[in-house]
Amino acid sequence: MDAHDAALRERVCELCRHLYALGWASGTGGGFSLRDGDRIYVAPSGVQKERLRPEQIFVVDLEGRLLSAGQGVGLRISACTPLFLHAYRQRGAGAVLHSHSLNACLASVVFGRTFRVRGLEMMKGIEGAQADQVHEVPILDNTPHEHELADALAEAIATHPQSHAVLVRGHGAYIWGRDWVHAKTQAECYDYLFAAAVRLHELGLDPARLDRRLGHSGGEQGRQP
Amino acid sequence: MDAHDAALRERVCELCRHLYALGWASGTGGGFSLRDGDRIYVAPSGVQKERLRPEQIFVVDLEGRLLSAGQGVGLRISACTPLFLHAYRQRGAGAVLHSHSLNACLASVVFGRTFRVRGLEMMKGIEGAQADQVHEVPILDNTPHEHELADALAEAIATHPQSHAVLVRGHGAYIWGRDWVHAKTQAECYDYLFAAAVRLHELGLDPARLDRRLGHSGGEQGRQP
Amino acid sequence: MDAHDAALRERVCELCRHLYALGWASGTGGGFSLRDGDRIYVAPSGVQKERLRPEQIFVVDLEGRLLSAGQGVGLRISACTPLFLHAYRQRGAGAVLHSHSLNACLASVVFGRTFRVRGLEMMKGIEGAQADQVHEVPILDNTPHEHELADALAEAIATHPQSHAVLVRGHGAYIWGRDWVHAKTQAECYDYLFAAAVRLHELGLDPARLDRRLGHSGGEQGRQP
Amino acid sequence: MDAHDAALRERVCELCRHLYALGWASGTGGGFSLRDGDRIYVAPSGVQKERLRPEQIFVVDLEGRLLSAGQGVGLRISACTPLFLHAYRQRGAGAVLHSHSLNACLASVVFGRTFRVRGLEMMKGIEGAQADQVHEVPILDNTPHEHELADALAEAIATHPQSHAVLVRGHGAYIWGRDWVHAKTQAECYDYLFAAAVRLHELGLDPARLDRRLGHSGGEQGRQP
Repeated sequence: MDAHDAALRERVCELCRHLYALGWASGTGGGFSLRDGDRIYVAPSGVQKERLRPEQIFVVDLEGRLLSAGQGVGLRISACTPLFLHAYRQRGAGAVLHSHSLNACLASVVFGRTFRVRGLEMMKGIEGAQADQVHEVPILDNTPHEHELADALAEAIATHPQSHAVLVRGHGAYIWGRDWVHAKTQAECYDYLFAAAVRLHELGLDPARLDRRLGHSGGEQGRQP
Repeated sequence: MDAHDAALRERVCELCRHLYALGWASGTGGGFSLRDGDRIYVAPSGVQKERLRPEQIFVVDLEGRLLSAGQGVGLRISACTPLFLHAYRQRGAGAVLHSHSLNACLASVVFGRTFRVRGLEMMKGIEGAQADQVHEVPILDNTPHEHELADALAEAIATHPQSHAVLVRGHGAYIWGRDWVHAKTQAECYDYLFAAAVRLHELGLDPARLDRRLGHSGGEQGRQP
Repeated sequence: MDAHDAALRERVCELCRHLYALGWASGTGGGFSLRDGDRIYVAPSGVQKERLRPEQIFVVDLEGRLLSAGQGVGLRISACTPLFLHAYRQRGAGAVLHSHSLNACLASVVFGRTFRVRGLEMMKGIEGAQADQVHEVPILDNTPHEHELADALAEAIATHPQSHAVLVRGHGAYIWGRDWVHAKTQAECYDYLFAAAVRLHELGLDPARLDRRLGHSGGEQGRQP
Repeated sequence: MDAHDAALRERVCELCRHLYALGWASGTGGGFSLRDGDRIYVAPSGVQKERLRPEQIFVVDLEGRLLSAGQGVGLRISACTPLFLHAYRQRGAGAVLHSHSLNACLASVVFGRTFRVRGLEMMKGIEGAQADQVHEVPILDNTPHEHELADALAEAIATHPQSHAVLVRGHGAYIWGRDWVHAKTQAECYDYLFAAAVRLHELGLDPARLDRRLGHSGGEQGRQP
């Protein structure tokens, strides 16, 4: 483990602590991975994400072949790995995270097959999105085992090229970016949008029908039909 | 107090600080206990859990006989001790915690005699639970004194072998696991489920009727009858 | 400033930081005071409570006469001082705090002239309260200037001997205890009850009609008439 | 960079970390600026606000002319700069911040063209506001690009001399004060009011019709017509 490798492992641990602090990785859920050239750094499965240590990180290549196993009794690589790899290969992502945020979970249950939002400034933080147009995030049905999601995720990524996230029903979200900073930023923006949309839905407003301008009625906007 | 004993005491203190940070132990409520062989480490009663010191921890055996008293003026062992002991004896638990989380309290008031949830990924964090099937947690009536709950808790543990938690109405939850890591993990998963279920209930959805797949209606799911 | 005096000043600062961390003292609001014999330590008015320094603390006697002024340009003693003094004199309190918690504020707006709660375990943290009986906290009308509240607070304290708190409409709460630990504990319990009551009210349940036991209907409890 | 200049840069970084901790600057959103004589210190655009370093801060004069560029590859000055400058010039502000708080965003969507509140003590933290009278904050339509807001903001500042904040629909708020302490205080008070107003609206109460006194009905107040 040289200094560069050590720094990448520590970065994964640091970001997993950040996810835990945000409430996205409680109960060993969620996780963060990043890519360095052809090496993907991934956390182990079923481990407290806020207490990860650098030597516990696994390294695989873009086909998922093990390059370096995490050190620890009974450690297995994250079951999210096949899902992470799709975002790395299909989008050239530099980092992919998995969030168990309650906001993502609630949004995935409340909003059918597609999460839609319009008119919120935080959409501008999503690469390629514009606040004036509806932004869509696909919502996949969940599966009994996490690796079984991989095909559906690959298809959703292919059919929603404008999205940097995929929601999974009753589960959470996969979110990616160019590098760890960008993935973290995309994830914070998406989580804000999930939270806002659920709150607006509770308030009787449709988050896909908001407008940055107030309508002619002079009253509230986005009222659900 | 040898190094092993000291480490276990410090672990109880650390986990009590964690519970406080999560909002599960405000106002001296809640607490964490763990087992080392036949020795059960338990916090004192009515003390600020985020400021516990190792020497204040009590040690009892599996029958509740005092092995070592916590040091401090007027310290009494936690009133939860008889309840903790049932989980240790009936389930072979390695750690048992008591949470005063508002999520647990609200779930215990809203959901009758049994908390039921289905279709949420965080259920997979509960040992033995499957997200496709309804998971049940019994809800006990509360009692004027905490030790009076013990018989009802013993019966609920016996009649709900699939649950790793018992809710108490208007009060909170008792949650256990194989060791402190597992108990903490179970508790974080359950708390997420309690929070999600109350929010979904507020949104007009029945948390026991969620499906990991979206139904044929193409719309929202779990609508209450 | 001897070591004892310095420790008391530092305690007030530490507790003001704690109040800020809990969200009870944002925007310079809220504050903590404590009594040592006939000396009352009080924070200055209109200062960021999370950045208080020991030399900024004022000391007055039980009649409010200045014993030691806080050091700093333009510092004035907290406008809450006359209110704190009533709790010290009428109840023999050892510490009194003022919370601007949003939970307290919302409860004070939603629940008329009296806050009533029953059936919640956290009530047992309130000295003298029993979870089986309705516990009442008076809600005062607010006044344009904080010191004008003093007479109404004195009367409310006199007429509600079982309460350790007074709510002020649209404002927050005054809460006290035997010493700083007890005042902090009472405040954490009350804040939990305020939060729970508002959430239960939103869920269509009356927090004054909860029962620790589930009624014969086998369904939800406390349904509003 | 002398010691005085270094301290101002560090202050901007510290306050950006504070905004992030409060949830007002997630996903690189939000930001803090302050004035020292004719020098305005501003954070760069699109950078993680909780990880800013002093050398990354830009300095401009009151007309927005660059005095010192932030050091870093591809750094651009915050797109909020023209908006900040209006508050500095029109109000003589000493510090101006931009918040992406979800509370501000929701309030801006729910409350039409003007945010109105009455009867809440935290209003007294707003310079010049009185809790007995309705306090108004203008809500601007959002624009595709942040700098396009500048004219509308200038007009809103001119027509609402009593307000220390401007809300932007689906976006957040601009808030200012005499110096960094005052701007932070105003912002914490406003955010509390935004949060309270949205919660009260959810509870069926009109935040513009609250009274510090309970009405003759003896029941709840501010009921929406």
